[in-house]
Amino acid sequence: MIHESTITAISTAPGIGGIAVIRVSGSDALKISDSIFEPQKKGSSVLTQEANTISFGRITNGGNEVLDEVLLAVFRAPHSFTGEDVVEISCHGSIYIQQQILHVLLKNGCVLAQPGEFTQRAFMNGKMDLSQAEAVADLISSTSKASHRMAMSQMRGGFSNELMKLRTQLLNFVSLVELELDFNEEDVEFADRTQLKSLATTIQRLIERLSDSFRVGNALKNGIPVALVGETNVGKSTLLNVLLNEEKAIVSDIHGTTRDVIEDSININGIHFRFIDTAGIRDTKDKIESMGIERTYKKIEQASIVLWILDCTQLSEHMEWLTERISQRSVGKKVILVFNKIDKIAMEEREVLNQLFENFEGERIYISARDRINTDGLQKALINAAQLPDIHPGDVVVNNIRHYEALQNAHSSICRVIDGLDSGISGDFLSQDIRECMHFLGEITGQISNDEILGNIFGKFCIGK
Amino acid sequence: MIHESTITAISTAPGIGGIAVIRVSGSDALKISDSIFEPQKKGSSVLTQEANTISFGRITNGGNEVLDEVLLAVFRAPHSFTGEDVVEISCHGSIYIQQQILHVLLKNGCVLAQPGEFTQRAFMNGKMDLSQAEAVADLISSTSKASHRMAMSQMRGGFSNELMKLRTQLLNFVSLVELELDFNEEDVEFADRTQLKSLATTIQRLIERLSDSFRVGNALKNGIPVALVGETNVGKSTLLNVLLNEEKAIVSDIHGTTRDVIEDSININGIHFRFIDTAGIRDTKDKIESMGIERTYKKIEQASIVLWILDCTQLSEHMEWLTERISQRSVGKKVILVFNKIDKIAMEEREVLNQLFENFEGERIYISARDRINTDGLQKALINAAQLPDIHPGDVVVNNIRHYEALQNAHSSICRVIDGLDSGISGDFLSQDIRECMHFLGEITGQISNDEILGNIFGKFCIGK
Repeated sequence: MIHESTITAISTAPGIGGIAVIRVSGSDALKISDSIFEPQKKGSSVLTQEANTISFGRITNGGNEVLDEVLLAVFRAPHSFTGEDVVEISCHGSIYIQQQILHVLLKNGCVLAQPGEFTQRAFMNGKMDLSQAEAVADLISSTSKASHRMAMSQMRGGFSNELMKLRTQLLNFVSLVELELDFNEEDVEFADRTQLKSLATTIQRLIERLSDSFRVGNALKNGIPVALVGETNVGKSTLLNVLLNEEKAIVSDIHGTTRDVIEDSININGIHFRFIDTAGIRDTKDKIESMGIERTYKKIEQASIVLWILDCTQLSEHMEWLTERISQRSVGKKVILVFNKIDKIAMEEREVLNQLFENFEGERIYISARDRINTDGLQKALINAAQLPDIHPGDVVVNNIRHYEALQNAHSSICRVIDGLDSGISGDFLSQDIRECMHFLGEITGQISNDEILGNIFGKFCIGK
Repeated sequence: MIHESTITAISTAPGIGGIAVIRVSGSDALKISDSIFEPQKKGSSVLTQEANTISFGRITNGGNEVLDEVLLAVFRAPHSFTGEDVVEISCHGSIYIQQQILHVLLKNGCVLAQPGEFTQRAFMNGKMDLSQAEAVADLISSTSKASHRMAMSQMRGGFSNELMKLRTQLLNFVSLVELELDFNEEDVEFADRTQLKSLATTIQRLIERLSDSFRVGNALKNGIPVALVGETNVGKSTLLNVLLNEEKAIVSDIHGTTRDVIEDSININGIHFRFIDTAGIRDTKDKIESMGIERTYKKIEQASIVLWILDCTQLSEHMEWLTERISQRSVGKKVILVFNKIDKIAMEEREVLNQLFENFEGERIYISARDRINTDGLQKALINAAQLPDIHPGDVVVNNIRHYEALQNAHSSICRVIDGLDSGISGDFLSQDIRECMHFLGEITGQISNDEILGNIFGKFCIGK
């Protein structure tokens, strides 16, 4: 846990701003900063600057050149973000100045921080557990009220405090069980089996509750995949544009972050929908089971919600049959039948349409994408189909696949513990199952970790955090 | 000078970062911040927090929801950047969080800062003069050592301190001259004409020195325009790419800032060159004085340096004549004759080339853009042609067109003062010329300003500074 190096990085967003902040952390943070900083107040020095105070002065390049006039904040171990001595230099936000100050820090003994290294040090120094550290990254990339609330709850302890407490209780029991093994010729029972079973059941229920929350948490974090299915020219792209345009500001806010990697996405009432566009199906009549429809089936598999878009004015003759097939492929998914260009047909024709799809069980909705008729109704239908509860401040929701997998594993172990208690399993097997459950719970909080896990987690952070 | 409103803005670069800083300034900065901040330390409050200290706590949305855990720094008037009470909130760098905190500040009584409004308040509150405030913007947009040094020198007082001192001396003299006017029936002389002339001459020389520095300052600030002239297919774009690629990092660093508005630019040894690409001239023989060459002449007019690129392997028959014409149009500019594809011809052919251009007086240089032969030689030739001295820390260089124009006007006035003293002009005329000179000097430092001037200056700042 000893970090010999003092790390530094630009912690604010890349680019030109009014100000930028360069962070330094490590045992030499004060010494190195002192060597390049001239406080305006005579006689003062970074070395003697009180913790949690700011002083004004100049950063020099070690020679007689002033690089910038800055504010310099000092935090002292262990009362800092990383738990080490930390200096934060608030400089003018020119890229040139940021780079020059970074450069002079590196020249004077700092090393460039790896992505997430400040947070990793905070974890290593016991300032936060692993799930809290992961929440820092989630918090930074949160783009909606729901994802922000989940991350905030997790960063502030969330379920990990509770897991740690229960894990400690498990540890007490397993110690007693293992003590029994030392006396295994005598028939002693130090660990109260009834209490142990009660604890195991509590843990089991908590894990189940947390695992259940993952469907919601994952959907809120990563967005809900929606497959847009339809023949060519039924108005899919018009519809997509209408949906995207109405939320243009939010979409453009996150350019460069999610839009490069995921499909078009919109945010409706704080819920993220990712649209998986499918190639328009062409009705080739004799080859209706062609590659096009197969590809569409594949896309449907990735989606939670299927928007099946029809052109009211031009139904293909195989439409009913096709819709039925798509419904069959969408078991467990919400299918919304969208009748587009509804303004182009008479009321009687709408009746005919309804009869045509009388066997269809999902929701149906009538719109005109071009004239924006009932597109808000479609948005509501999407929100309904998402079936997501509101997230309230402090709600505990698992949204991390790593936590979910560890919970699944811990669940298997704790079920075996309960079964074992019921069937009067021997102490050594019982102990093994408890230890396994503790291992997986410990993976979540970081009490059990290894370099590979840590590398995976912190490698995804941005530099400077 | 009374600012009723308390302003706020995100002061770090836009986008996602590890952290972001939101600045609040004004008489209610502490009160508003206090209403949304819960310090971790019980019993403490923003209102009682000591100046220049940082406290850790939570920003709430006014209700029970925690928006973020932040560091909050307090600065108290007049010892702050703006001279007012200032709070800086250092939050997690999620766009959502930045916006939410801004939102809750606005809801609690702040107004959104205009571009440059923090710096404008610093100026209004006497924390800096106008030329120093302008230097803040220059500092933030500085991209090279030279532009950084000029801005830093200007921000730290530069020539404005000296101008203000001299202006005060002028004021003393003009008061005495105007006092004489009250006694104009008696023949008194309170203002020592010899001393006044000595002062006027000092001012004249300083203005001349500063004005002279504008050529360098302007070139360093805005880049040196280089016209790239040549027939089609002589390798102009290959050459440009080679030059740009070698400095790719620097160019890409400033994307979105200067590259959108100016032409391709590179930074060689800290000097910015802006390339004005001309449409390739086609040798149309009978219509050689066609639109193409006319347009090229126009481009040449905008440039300080002309790179006239020839393909050694394929000289047009009108080349010599054309080159001569271009040289004629380039009076006062540096013309560099660039022989490209030099590796494709024999030594004897090079001799022939040289004879062909024996009347050409500018520099000539032999390269191969494709094979990167002697492209560093071309870079050196560009630096030589730029004729820019090195800027040293603390050098006083005028790089602001507004200052330059005010200096030109002040120069006319001070020359009239000197002429008037020589010819024994009457006191009232003398006083008028001195007042005019003082007016223009005051425009630079901001002792004379109006809303339009200030609007022009601060409107160009980024928000949050």
